[in-house]
Amino acid sequence: MEKIKVGIAGLGRLGKVHANNIAFKIPNAELTAACSIVPAELEYAKSELGVTDVYTDYREMLEKADIDAVAIVTTSGEHCWQIAAALDAGKHVFSDKPLGVTVEECKLAEAAVERHPELSFFLGFMRRFDPSYAYAKKKIEEGAIGTPYMVKATGIDPEALVEGAIKFAATSGGIFIDMAIHDIDLMRWFLGSDPVEVYAAGATFKHPEFKEAGDDETGVAMYRCENGALGFVHVGRTAAHGYHVETEIIGTEGSLRISPVPEKNLCMIYDKNGAVVECVSGFPERFAESYQLEMQEFIDCVGEGRKPEVTVYDGTKSTQIGFATTEAWKNGGIVKINY
Amino acid sequence: MEKIKVGIAGLGRLGKVHANNIAFKIPNAELTAACSIVPAELEYAKSELGVTDVYTDYREMLEKADIDAVAIVTTSGEHCWQIAAALDAGKHVFSDKPLGVTVEECKLAEAAVERHPELSFFLGFMRRFDPSYAYAKKKIEEGAIGTPYMVKATGIDPEALVEGAIKFAATSGGIFIDMAIHDIDLMRWFLGSDPVEVYAAGATFKHPEFKEAGDDETGVAMYRCENGALGFVHVGRTAAHGYHVETEIIGTEGSLRISPVPEKNLCMIYDKNGAVVECVSGFPERFAESYQLEMQEFIDCVGEGRKPEVTVYDGTKSTQIGFATTEAWKNGGIVKINY
Amino acid sequence: MEKIKVGIAGLGRLGKVHANNIAFKIPNAELTAACSIVPAELEYAKSELGVTDVYTDYREMLEKADIDAVAIVTTSGEHCWQIAAALDAGKHVFSDKPLGVTVEECKLAEAAVERHPELSFFLGFMRRFDPSYAYAKKKIEEGAIGTPYMVKATGIDPEALVEGAIKFAATSGGIFIDMAIHDIDLMRWFLGSDPVEVYAAGATFKHPEFKEAGDDETGVAMYRCENGALGFVHVGRTAAHGYHVETEIIGTEGSLRISPVPEKNLCMIYDKNGAVVECVSGFPERFAESYQLEMQEFIDCVGEGRKPEVTVYDGTKSTQIGFATTEAWKNGGIVKINY
Amino acid sequence: MEKIKVGIAGLGRLGKVHANNIAFKIPNAELTAACSIVPAELEYAKSELGVTDVYTDYREMLEKADIDAVAIVTTSGEHCWQIAAALDAGKHVFSDKPLGVTVEECKLAEAAVERHPELSFFLGFMRRFDPSYAYAKKKIEEGAIGTPYMVKATGIDPEALVEGAIKFAATSGGIFIDMAIHDIDLMRWFLGSDPVEVYAAGATFKHPEFKEAGDDETGVAMYRCENGALGFVHVGRTAAHGYHVETEIIGTEGSLRISPVPEKNLCMIYDKNGAVVECVSGFPERFAESYQLEMQEFIDCVGEGRKPEVTVYDGTKSTQIGFATTEAWKNGGIVKINY
Repeated sequence: MEKIKVGIAGLGRLGKVHANNIAFKIPNAELTAACSIVPAELEYAKSELGVTDVYTDYREMLEKADIDAVAIVTTSGEHCWQIAAALDAGKHVFSDKPLGVTVEECKLAEAAVERHPELSFFLGFMRRFDPSYAYAKKKIEEGAIGTPYMVKATGIDPEALVEGAIKFAATSGGIFIDMAIHDIDLMRWFLGSDPVEVYAAGATFKHPEFKEAGDDETGVAMYRCENGALGFVHVGRTAAHGYHVETEIIGTEGSLRISPVPEKNLCMIYDKNGAVVECVSGFPERFAESYQLEMQEFIDCVGEGRKPEVTVYDGTKSTQIGFATTEAWKNGGIVKINY
Repeated sequence: MEKIKVGIAGLGRLGKVHANNIAFKIPNAELTAACSIVPAELEYAKSELGVTDVYTDYREMLEKADIDAVAIVTTSGEHCWQIAAALDAGKHVFSDKPLGVTVEECKLAEAAVERHPELSFFLGFMRRFDPSYAYAKKKIEEGAIGTPYMVKATGIDPEALVEGAIKFAATSGGIFIDMAIHDIDLMRWFLGSDPVEVYAAGATFKHPEFKEAGDDETGVAMYRCENGALGFVHVGRTAAHGYHVETEIIGTEGSLRISPVPEKNLCMIYDKNGAVVECVSGFPERFAESYQLEMQEFIDCVGEGRKPEVTVYDGTKSTQIGFATTEAWKNGGIVKINY
Repeated sequence: MEKIKVGIAGLGRLGKVHANNIAFKIPNAELTAACSIVPAELEYAKSELGVTDVYTDYREMLEKADIDAVAIVTTSGEHCWQIAAALDAGKHVFSDKPLGVTVEECKLAEAAVERHPELSFFLGFMRRFDPSYAYAKKKIEEGAIGTPYMVKATGIDPEALVEGAIKFAATSGGIFIDMAIHDIDLMRWFLGSDPVEVYAAGATFKHPEFKEAGDDETGVAMYRCENGALGFVHVGRTAAHGYHVETEIIGTEGSLRISPVPEKNLCMIYDKNGAVVECVSGFPERFAESYQLEMQEFIDCVGEGRKPEVTVYDGTKSTQIGFATTEAWKNGGIVKINY
Repeated sequence: MEKIKVGIAGLGRLGKVHANNIAFKIPNAELTAACSIVPAELEYAKSELGVTDVYTDYREMLEKADIDAVAIVTTSGEHCWQIAAALDAGKHVFSDKPLGVTVEECKLAEAAVERHPELSFFLGFMRRFDPSYAYAKKKIEEGAIGTPYMVKATGIDPEALVEGAIKFAATSGGIFIDMAIHDIDLMRWFLGSDPVEVYAAGATFKHPEFKEAGDDETGVAMYRCENGALGFVHVGRTAAHGYHVETEIIGTEGSLRISPVPEKNLCMIYDKNGAVVECVSGFPERFAESYQLEMQEFIDCVGEGRKPEVTVYDGTKSTQIGFATTEAWKNGGIVKINY
């Protein structure tokens, strides 16, 4: 078994998750290089990941490291140029979502991908690899609910983590850019159609700091798709019970619902409160397995010369939809979406 | 115990439900008269309800029958004038929802109610009396979820009954008028604020007959309320699993969800399909108890000289909101709602 | 519609439930007489139930009152002679469970029932009329789980009510006599076979008062039935979350479970504890509908000259099984059950 | 990071699971040798696991291979001598459950463990590492349910796999030896006390082949523990819905229930059957994570010189309890358990 050699760029919280998966959980992968502008992260690479070939300069890693592929887990604004540089250096690319922070730079990434049909490009919409979401997709493909025509998606961060969100409220791009990208991707994936119109609104009832920063603590958007299907996305930051990600797909013959109770595990307690199911604390807990499965799929795509199901165009479109939603929310009106 | 004497107007499917409750399930009520233009319904009154004092003319019942109150369960277009006539005849009035089919006639009902502050007027938003909804309201009032700021309401009729809906599609007033009135009332009730803007859309993927009749089989609407709260209503007609009424109320400190699984009863089956909960077949099954409880409350209000919590103005507003939603849906735009 | 005239004997907590059902909830019944040795209960009959024909002597009520039937809701030790006296007086009889407190007196009741084949005798195993249990039975009869061969039954009273149980621990007959009779009846009903052997044990970990009174706060029993089927009954008194009655019926093709979460209603709350379903507070809340439905069935049996499904022999057998279980529990051994 | 070098003995279905975990999922472990008497399994080791140092003789592997530890996943009858041989060869030992098939050989394993206090011995009761079971244990230790005093455990294999069970019915040791060992271990673990008495029974209603082979398709046992706590174990082989492992732990202040619905994932379907949760297909699916987590713990114990929580004595006791249960089941009586 030939192992795919991977260099990681970025070793923040999520970078560490990916790095550990590559280093220890993917049989046919090997983590051979790491790049970060944060010295402590490079220390981590050496001491915890056993990676000695480390860089502070991304381009230098591309040039010198013994790698077949890179995993880009840097800040969103760096993704696109790093994608293009890696592809142009002959490396397969895994990039965390979002593809980019402007449509223009997404187009540059698209061009780079198109320049290198011989390479695999993988965009980290990891929810598609969550066993429950993947199962839902499979059931739909098997016809279990007929034709899907509506998606209702909810994603609410835990109140326990709200301080961080408040801190970044002014620079996050707004709640839809910050939080709705996965839901938008799931909506497109399950419906098999792109939204052409969006109406959106927001609310802030608990933490006025969001309003003061030009943001909202809750956002809701309604979408009409090209094929007539409908979408509803609800994102928020103040779930008392934990991290709430729930999705419903409604079809002509039935419907599927993923995770209406974001259970921590299979243990229920009966106590003075009633029958209680404790809930997951955040995305690292909820989607730990998805991160591993998506990386496995990336490595397998590289190894087998396959193209991933998610494309660079999915990345561009979700970004476009995010911006259109933000515009509708800011202006309180309906926005048409052109691709 | 003095029993309140009631005359019923209309003995169709729902009329029979109310009549049986009055006759047999409300200790302090007595069904003493019945009015219907359908001979078989008057036969039913005699043979099943033991009511011998029957009428084909509503005004005649008001004039001659020995009644303290009337229960109006006629077709929607008759409600308002019948309400006014009964009040003017000195009778307490229970009217099934909706209050009326135009805002103008609602105003006539309002005026009649205002003319008779000595009489009880009760509008049949029975969901408010469902033990689960009533419990949710009580929990909210006790502060269990802080300030409620979003309601997500779903009401889907069973596919098993879709033929009837198709038959009446051209004359029902459209899916929002036909189906969303309870959800609109619940939204106002739980949020304690009125919607001032609505965006709506529809979809038809299973039964093109709806589209052909100018209707849709699914409708979704988003509301922004005066106080900044948000509402989402999803109505449909093709639930494979039964009658699906579900409501979520989201607050600053928690959220409540009523009936995500519209269970038929407390019996679950484990079989080759998995762990299966069978679902209720329709509103008569789901809300049987609510119909009884709302009638009990009406009778108690009459007996104790109390005013019901639901007012005639709630009826007018829900009708106005229904029309605004319909306009948004028909025109594909945003509609402002003025009261 | 001819109404069945009923006299009630006993107006304690459960007696009031039955009396109100007869008086106000059963269309074809009428409560025309009441008997109690407690003056306040007769006052209640007059003021709340509108019954003016009241007695302190049971036999006098049988002799003088204008009644077709009696409903016996007195203390368990009075049931059998009151049943016999009523039947011999030509009255149909509803008796609350248990049939009697000794097998000998059960046999006297059996003889009285056999003497009067023209009269209806109804034993109040009301759980059989609970919509969920009745539905389970119907599903089994339809073959949904093949041949049922095991029942696992749990019945735990709420800790909130434990003081009352402690008070009566010395005189209750022990936990199995006090609490297991419904579960024993359900086991026989669902399995269609009688237990021929029982092993039982008890435990007291929270309230030593039970042990001191010769009782236990928890009891478990295992049964082997004539046809080879198995039963497991677990009764207790200290459920933190409320009143927990749960039953599982396992068959060759599937299994049914009734009420693993003894939900108060359909409202779930998401709060800092997680996703919480509040639970019912006790049997009056859990089985309110069952009491009404069983009384309706009794009245209908009388009206239609039908024999109820539950027989006097079911009453005797459940009593015998209760005693055998108690013997096994007391002696820590296996007891054979002969009928 | 020094990696622990492991040799695996046995590469059947479960052996492959363990081998893949050691080779690819445990950062600080390395699979360096493999032993099997089945040539195809050694081929698998080479081609899929990258292990070139393979043996057909277990003692030869102990002598020659470059290993710190062995993982024993051979047939149950081989465990004890292989444990002793490995410990005497200075290797840390992971052995799959059960410890042995007779109490005598368990004692030999005990002696070997006692001879080598410098080595880690780990017995594979993997359910203790399942996140839900581990969480339940943690909650109990935190006092969430007060003092636990009853465990109700259910383990039912899927009907879909019954053919295999029928084939081995005559040689499996009977249903309790074959299936109850995990439940017995969980009962001891959660209650913190050993059973001193058992009553058991069996039933066969679907596949007479079990009865013909001297076995049963369903077994139930009741235990009384030294500290007065109670246990109930129900094992079976014919679950229509999948693999059903469920455990309830009842304490003085509340109770915990693990997996009453053995859900396949978080996806629920609403279709013509109702609201359906599909279930897991078998133990490899249900406990995949547990196998990985227990092996991680073994490797960490070796690396850190720690002693695992599960001891060799736990292995002996569960075997003794299994035999006592079998005796009670075979003879239809009560059996006292002495350790």
